[in-house]
This record gives sequence, C-alpha cells and structure tokens, in this order.
Amino acid sequence: MKTIISLSELHATRRDLPGPVGLVPTMGFLHAGHISLVQRARSECASVVVSIFVNPTQFGPGEDLAKYPRDLPHDLALLDAAGADLVWTPTPEIVYPPGFQTWVEVADLTKGLEGEVRPGHFRGVTTVVAKLFNGVRPDRAYFGQKDAQQAAVIRRMARDLDFPVEIVVCPTVREADGLAMSSRNTYLQAEERQAATVLFRALSAAKSAYERCERDAETLRRIMREAVTVEPLARLQYVSCADYETLEELETVKGKALLSMAVYLGKTRLIDNVILE
Amino acid sequence: MKTIISLSELHATRRDLPGPVGLVPTMGFLHAGHISLVQRARSECASVVVSIFVNPTQFGPGEDLAKYPRDLPHDLALLDAAGADLVWTPTPEIVYPPGFQTWVEVADLTKGLEGEVRPGHFRGVTTVVAKLFNGVRPDRAYFGQKDAQQAAVIRRMARDLDFPVEIVVCPTVREADGLAMSSRNTYLQAEERQAATVLFRALSAAKSAYERCERDAETLRRIMREAVTVEPLARLQYVSCADYETLEELETVKGKALLSMAVYLGKTRLIDNVILE
Repeated sequence: MKTIISLSELHATRRDLPGPVGLVPTMGFLHAGHISLVQRARSECASVVVSIFVNPTQFGPGEDLAKYPRDLPHDLALLDAAGADLVWTPTPEIVYPPGFQTWVEVADLTKGLEGEVRPGHFRGVTTVVAKLFNGVRPDRAYFGQKDAQQAAVIRRMARDLDFPVEIVVCPTVREADGLAMSSRNTYLQAEERQAATVLFRALSAAKSAYERCERDAETLRRIMREAVTVEPLARLQYVSCADYETLEELETVKGKALLSMAVYLGKTRLIDNVILE
Repeated sequence: MKTIISLSELHATRRDLPGPVGLVPTMGFLHAGHISLVQRARSECASVVVSIFVNPTQFGPGEDLAKYPRDLPHDLALLDAAGADLVWTPTPEIVYPPGFQTWVEVADLTKGLEGEVRPGHFRGVTTVVAKLFNGVRPDRAYFGQKDAQQAAVIRRMARDLDFPVEIVVCPTVREADGLAMSSRNTYLQAEERQAATVLFRALSAAKSAYERCERDAETLRRIMREAVTVEPLARLQYVSCADYETLEELETVKGKALLSMAVYLGKTRLIDNVILE
C-alpha cells in the first residue's frame, strides 16, 4: 500500500493503476463502516484508492473541525489490512491553495435536513468530492448510507455534471446494540453512549409501524419524536419522513422513502436513517 | 469527421480517440476566431473535439438566447475543412435534463466586468464547461482571448477543481479594420458595423499611451471613455484597466494588465480587450 500527500504524485501514480479504480473518500478516524466500503471496493475494483482528508469547508462555524478525531497511523494499518492500494492524505493547503474560490453546489436537495441545520456543509462536501473525482479519476466511488442526504447529493452532482463515476452507496454498519458507526461516537461519555441507541430504536419503531402498514408520514415522524423524547439525555434536532429521491417531506408514504433524524447527546450530534421500500 | 448528439455516444467514441485530446467549446455560428482555435488544437493534439451548444444558462433574462445566430451546416463544413475529428452537438435536454440542479461557481473573479452587468452569466459558463470537461475528458481546452474574463474564470475553475486539463488561451482574431471577430457582429446594421471599430480604436489609443509610459490606470480608462464618446452610434457600458490575474481595477499599472470594455452599438453589445505587459 502506497501513501501519497502531493497532488502531482497522485496524478503520476494514478496513471499506472489498473482499472477499474474504486475510490473511498473519508475524513479518517476509520471504523468498521469505512472498512466495509474499502472491502466492497476491493471486491469490485482492480485498484482501491482511499482519501483521508478532514475537509474544513464542510464544517460550519462553531462546528467541531479543530477537535475532529484523527489517528493516521491506526487508519493506515486498517487500510493496509483491508487491502487498499493507495492512500491520499493531502494537507488543507494542497486542497485549498491561496486564491481558491470555486464551489460546486447542488441546489434543491441540500435545502432541508442536514443542509438546513448545517448551512454551507454540502457545498463543502460537493466541492471536495468533485476535486477528489478529478484528482483520482475513479470508475466507482463508495459512500455510506449512514449519510443518506450526502449520498443523494453526490449522486445528483455526479449525474448533473456528467462525472463518469458510478456512485455506490453501501449499507450502514452498526454496533451490536444498533448504534450506527460514526467517528463522532468517540465523543460520547459512557452514559451518552448507552442513550445513543435511541436513534436506532426510534427509527426501528417507525419502521415497524410502516411494516404494519402505517402510511401516514406525520404518524411515523411522531413515533420517532416520542421515542426520542423519553430518553432524558437526548435532545432531538429533527426527524424526517421524506421521499427517497427528492428528500421532500411526505404526507403519505407511497414509493421508496427515507426516515432520518439528528439528535444531540450532550454536545455530540448524531444522525441516522433507515430506508422504507 | 464524426458528429454526435447523445452523451453516451460521446463517451463511447471518446474512449477510442488517440490522445492528447484537444477540446474547442463553442456556441456555433463559427467565424475565423473559432477556426483559429481548432487549427491550434489540430497542431497540438492527436484528436480534436469541438462542441457546439448554445448554452441557455449563460444567457441572462432579456438576453439574446432565442435570436442567437445558428447555422449548423455551415459550422460543420468549416470544422471539417479545419480538420476536427469529432463534433458534439447536444440538445438543451441532454445537457440540462429534468431535475438538473448542480452549479459550478467561481466567486471573486466573476464579480466585476461582465459578471457585474450579466448576473448569472459565468455560473452558466463554468457549469457547462465543467460538464464538457467531464464529458469529453480533454487533455487541453482552447478558448479565445476575446472573452478575457471567461478565460481567467475557466483557468481558475480548472485549477481550483483539479481538472487535469491544460487551458490554452489564443489571441483574438480581428477583421482587417480591427473589429474583433464575434458571432454577434452579424447583428450589426451597416452603419453600426462601421462604428464598431470604436472598441479597437479606444483600446489601441489607451495601449499607445501605455507604450508611451502612461501608468495611471484612470488616465488609460479616460482615454478609452473619450474615444467611445466621440462615436455617436456607440453607447459605453464599461471600461476597465485591471490586474491580468485578479481582474481587480488598478490605480497604477505595474505588472501584466488587461484593458477591456463593453459597448452597445444599437441593440448589439460588443466586448473587446487588449493585454498590457
């Protein structure tokens, strides 16, 4: 496994990689969720490239950029074991050199949910992913379903801008008690960690109701709200029952839909979702 | 020479083109300026791709999209003679399918000059050029110096988003009397056509003053303004003496600079520029 920092060395190395090339973009501090993406890429591609970059432009003011967890040696050991071929770890100065001023923005899909409570977040995501696509030129790129809106936004961006990249969205990997894997879980105090299962419990309760043929979206949202309310350590930010493609809030669930939520446990903000189909 | 409409056929054909591949993006109604770009590409690249697409998103409300001149048979004959290998002529529905909502935007460079008087123009330009870069995947792309701000904006976009495309900017081609070639020249009535030389005369007067060691930018702008004022059929929109890289208005000309202007002849808006170095 080769590790590269500069963009010019990335371009030079990329030229010699056999295709198809799979890209797994990450912000590091890797967990089993990331590794599942690497394994999926490994099983489908001749070459697997992983990027590790804590992207400053997707953090809002007051968000946790400075204290975002990092452990590059551990990340590299995990990626080596998972069979990655190339790891790109650029610095912020390489990705955003002086004078940088170009942004890629998806308009409608970024208005609600995470986009509403984290203004500018998706502009940072789509811009850095566009740069990764141009730098690595992958044939396929792998993203986790845990960031459901991000996956929808990137699918849209790739389609709209004609990137010749297949976007592969992989299932959320969960701890034994249902908590979705996230680098931010490391922030949780012991009691908060226990309480954090409330997201999956709330989503599961609403999904069960759906499977019992409940189709009223507001009822599903109420079930999630009530499940979070009974957990004293949890503070609900939003719940959503939205169309899977457009992410518009539903009145009645008809086609494929997305149940999603954001919840604070203390100062730690967690998101999770399940798909209804 | 092959002509293609669909994106999928473009991708398939692109795969078999020998590199390096040169791209000349155009809005059609080709003149000697465009052909000079094709010839330059022909001399430097193994394959030459030309796109013809009147891009609706770079026309503002009230601009001349509907009446923009078109003559595809003539364009194809010129391109064939100039040695183009592949011409892509997508429809608006192919470039902007239903649900399209992703935009590429260069922030600072687009604020003044054309960007100020044509809001949204450069967002349309950078978005369609990003799509062309992803669709054609050229090694080099050729633009005319006549659209000086566009050239600067596209250079910035390619650098900021890590497009592996070399941006080649070619000299403005002029009629015998100095008028810069433009598809919009066809709009000019006979008297307006004669008066239209005022742009090059004004630019040349300011450039002569610069060559006589005039370095005060406002003096150079005043020379251009006065040269336009004496032409009764001309209505000045702006004159500029700006830094060549940042396009910021100068007080004193030190390094490379750009003299540029926009002038109405009747209802026809013309732009032109010269470089000081």
